[in-house]
Amino acid sequence: MAYSLGIDIGGTNIKAGVVDDGCNIIAVSKIKTNSAQGSDEVLKKIAEAGKAAAKEAKIPLSEIKWVGMGCPGTCNPETGLVEYSNNLKWENIPLQKIISEALHIPAYIENDANAAALGEYYTGAAKGAKSAIIITLGTGLGAGIIIDGKLFSGSNYAGAEIGHTVLNPNGDQCTCGRKGCFETFCSATALVKHTKRAIEEHPDSLLAEAAKKEGRVSGRTAFNAAKSGDRYGREVVDNFIDYLACGLINTINIFQPDILCIGGGVSNEGDNLLIPLKKRIKKEIYSKNSSHNTEIVLCNLGNKAGIIGAALLGKQYIAPPIKSCHNT
Amino acid sequence: MAYSLGIDIGGTNIKAGVVDDGCNIIAVSKIKTNSAQGSDEVLKKIAEAGKAAAKEAKIPLSEIKWVGMGCPGTCNPETGLVEYSNNLKWENIPLQKIISEALHIPAYIENDANAAALGEYYTGAAKGAKSAIIITLGTGLGAGIIIDGKLFSGSNYAGAEIGHTVLNPNGDQCTCGRKGCFETFCSATALVKHTKRAIEEHPDSLLAEAAKKEGRVSGRTAFNAAKSGDRYGREVVDNFIDYLACGLINTINIFQPDILCIGGGVSNEGDNLLIPLKKRIKKEIYSKNSSHNTEIVLCNLGNKAGIIGAALLGKQYIAPPIKSCHNT
Repeated sequence: MAYSLGIDIGGTNIKAGVVDDGCNIIAVSKIKTNSAQGSDEVLKKIAEAGKAAAKEAKIPLSEIKWVGMGCPGTCNPETGLVEYSNNLKWENIPLQKIISEALHIPAYIENDANAAALGEYYTGAAKGAKSAIIITLGTGLGAGIIIDGKLFSGSNYAGAEIGHTVLNPNGDQCTCGRKGCFETFCSATALVKHTKRAIEEHPDSLLAEAAKKEGRVSGRTAFNAAKSGDRYGREVVDNFIDYLACGLINTINIFQPDILCIGGGVSNEGDNLLIPLKKRIKKEIYSKNSSHNTEIVLCNLGNKAGIIGAALLGKQYIAPPIKSCHNT
Repeated sequence: MAYSLGIDIGGTNIKAGVVDDGCNIIAVSKIKTNSAQGSDEVLKKIAEAGKAAAKEAKIPLSEIKWVGMGCPGTCNPETGLVEYSNNLKWENIPLQKIISEALHIPAYIENDANAAALGEYYTGAAKGAKSAIIITLGTGLGAGIIIDGKLFSGSNYAGAEIGHTVLNPNGDQCTCGRKGCFETFCSATALVKHTKRAIEEHPDSLLAEAAKKEGRVSGRTAFNAAKSGDRYGREVVDNFIDYLACGLINTINIFQPDILCIGGGVSNEGDNLLIPLKKRIKKEIYSKNSSHNTEIVLCNLGNKAGIIGAALLGKQYIAPPIKSCHNT
């Protein structure tokens, strides 16, 4: 059995895991990121988290093939630099070099959304596909694009920002400076915001009551109210699905991937999300007459995708890219 | 000197050209397509056009390396079939096999917009780039995507339809069935339509007068009226540039290509188009802090791109993909 180490560097937590040949996480460790302490401290914690996971797994670092790291922001896998990370407030940090030297094993870096996408690709919902797109509906709307087994992020590693394509210039202000980006309609954050807006406009609705009972507004509130027959919850859900379909159809018309996977908390809605979405996509895609069309599915690794994908990063560089995890 | 044959199959004309190693067209021939006569007749004419160009160049077909064909619709370069062409009313036509047998040389097929993009890539505005996107503003809004020297068109060869991504769901009806596609705002057809609409709304404007003088409404009408200080012409131009910037920024945020080239008749506006466009793009792209950003230029092969690109198709299959034309 051979092992690799995957580290998912987040704004809140650093999560490390030892992953075996079968893509199973056999041990984990977690440390608070505390990015306000500065990059030197965070880098130490990343190494610490890696060592702690190996210790927990009872496997010496010398027996671990490599460490892969998923990091928010623009990561350049060629130079090993995190060029820019808004979340961590990093600029040109040599993450790969520092962690490789600290752990004495080869290190690989990648954008965190890309690393998670790789997890779904090698061993999750997209397993077996040649080309795949993974869309994650979270705080933002993240995307990972895999073409012929290789992550695609453009000439400067800053691409694949499908969340920052405008779907309607009359939409809400986006953090990127534009208005009406895909993210402003379909991130989990946007869904909560639009639910709150509907509650304010209709304080006597079932939707408002449901939120009061729940004690807060979540990505589930509108879906639950819609299921109970509430008209305003239904409106929020319909608008969300309309724009999600719109953005996914745009994506398919450009990439025509074998498979498109939807992840993030909202994907727990399952068929309530998937069935109306697939219906709209089938009807509207440009390739509706084609014999081969994109399969639409939900992600299935959940939060584990980040660690598993990071741990598999070395496969992008040293193994034939299209091989799936269990064939190594 | 080695030669290849490029054939640009259009809804109106079939244009064939013999192209030399230096990417120069040394002889051409042109035949009316007349697709209403059926595919057998059109296929005969394609072979005829190829033979006529070779004869005109005084080069026997046996000395021509290959024939490449750009054809509207979904072309599968692996099977050699034109799977579907709305323009020609073709379904699963074995174009590659029939023309290869008729001319006794290897044949390659590709979507016509892709073939033209390849021309700009090997020897036109995108020469020397690794990744490039070519957007052509014509009857429709066509796009060719080249990643690491290879044409990209998705798992079913129906991708790269950037013209069919919705920029505003409140826009005009698109031929693809959706509303507010990039094409409905920024094709030459759309520009003429929006100019006509402005003339109807403001029949006493300078814009209306300019159209009367010109005897028709063209893609130039609004640009010319705007230059003369007409407010309504300016509005049409500003709206056109707004949406063009929006669609191109979406494209860059996803692909981050080395270069993006704009072609079609409207590109003759030169700096009137390019300067405001570049300003908007620079301000709004997601990668504004990156040290490497997409260069925005106008195409420079004009109508010749279709023939030259088709003639170079063989290079996608038998030569290292990134080599530029003059290095063969």
